[in-house]
Amino acid sequence: MFLQTFETYNSINERELKDKNVVVIDTLRATSVITTALYNGAKEIIPVSEVEEAIELVKSLDKKTYLLAGERNSTKIEGFDLSNSPLEYTREKVENKTIIFTTTNGTKALKKVSLADNVILGCLLNASAVADYIFKEGKDTIIVCAGTEGKFSFDDIITAGVIYKKLSDLMEFESDDLSKASYFLYKPYEENLYEVMKHGYHFKRLKELGYDEDIDFCLTVDKFCIVPKLINGVIRKSEDL
Amino acid sequence: MFLQTFETYNSINERELKDKNVVVIDTLRATSVITTALYNGAKEIIPVSEVEEAIELVKSLDKKTYLLAGERNSTKIEGFDLSNSPLEYTREKVENKTIIFTTTNGTKALKKVSLADNVILGCLLNASAVADYIFKEGKDTIIVCAGTEGKFSFDDIITAGVIYKKLSDLMEFESDDLSKASYFLYKPYEENLYEVMKHGYHFKRLKELGYDEDIDFCLTVDKFCIVPKLINGVIRKSEDL
Repeated sequence: MFLQTFETYNSINERELKDKNVVVIDTLRATSVITTALYNGAKEIIPVSEVEEAIELVKSLDKKTYLLAGERNSTKIEGFDLSNSPLEYTREKVENKTIIFTTTNGTKALKKVSLADNVILGCLLNASAVADYIFKEGKDTIIVCAGTEGKFSFDDIITAGVIYKKLSDLMEFESDDLSKASYFLYKPYEENLYEVMKHGYHFKRLKELGYDEDIDFCLTVDKFCIVPKLINGVIRKSEDL
Repeated sequence: MFLQTFETYNSINERELKDKNVVVIDTLRATSVITTALYNGAKEIIPVSEVEEAIELVKSLDKKTYLLAGERNSTKIEGFDLSNSPLEYTREKVENKTIIFTTTNGTKALKKVSLADNVILGCLLNASAVADYIFKEGKDTIIVCAGTEGKFSFDDIITAGVIYKKLSDLMEFESDDLSKASYFLYKPYEENLYEVMKHGYHFKRLKELGYDEDIDFCLTVDKFCIVPKLINGVIRKSEDL
């Protein structure tokens, strides 16, 4: 098995995705939100790149069945039901709902890789579940970090490092330099992720906006044992498929 | 001062380079070779992307004044005078010569950034000299790693981390996530770079080809106190300009 990591979706050539597992990471906060929503009983998540696309899509849906969700510039979109804070995705709000979801980086990364056969979503909340999925599939795997504003982002790379570590506890594998770098970056901070994460631009930006509780939540490792999976543009729990 | 790091030249938008210092790093081995050649008295280095371009260029030159140098797939090019091993660039061979130089990654990175006002070359051999140059210029700075085969490469990123450390000893500055990551990757291995470098793909490849002495040489920090600078397609010691 060969593991490759990409610092953003920009640097991916779609042909490279063929016949591989693809893990999309956007720890702060899109993939953390989606994992939380599915854990709390959401029926499915439909990621869309643009706000207008989300609004157009729900025109044909029964208002009782869906929620409009997402962010632009880290804040809630006007007229939407939910923002990009995982704390809002309680069972009470999301159970059995279809969530139409748009974020700045995460959903764009998902669109970019949507042609791959096998796309799952990773974050710290489900790091071990993702490692276990990769182990069981046994196929070459590509980790795609959403990044922040088109650039390498600490939070996503450290998450890739955590998944690398969990996977190396399960099996031997080969990997590229960025996969190894993600592990070496994470390793000294194994017991205190906060200590390294706090240097990240995106982390600091969310902190300035007052999202301390969101950060604490998203930095929890292995809170949920589920793996969100993208099939034909819709994300559901892989355990239900 | 703001420091940005790019893992390869592919991810750079040329407009971002305007009014900035640009430091190109290709530790294994192009920028190490160029730094060594200039230290040993080479008059100038002319980087070209293609082998054919190098051969065309020397047609108009007096054979006594130049050397054809470079590599493809880490090995010497047929008919060329020198390979990409810094150990070959002795004073005896290179003094007062113009070196026409082509490599797989390094010279391509140099071409990509050649429109910037101020392009210098960095490696471990001259890390402190580069940091000192950035400090004295006092301008926003972009570090461009050559990378290996279009991807993030351990050797270049660790070198960026060393320069970050040297610079932080001289001044306070802001930086992006990849700059910080390069420092955090390097820091635990400050006393033994070999320990972290050995995990890199490019390092392993050179080792397999038997270039152990080249690796040891290129991993020496601060061997030379010079800064190569690219102006109008020609690299000379900035100290001579």
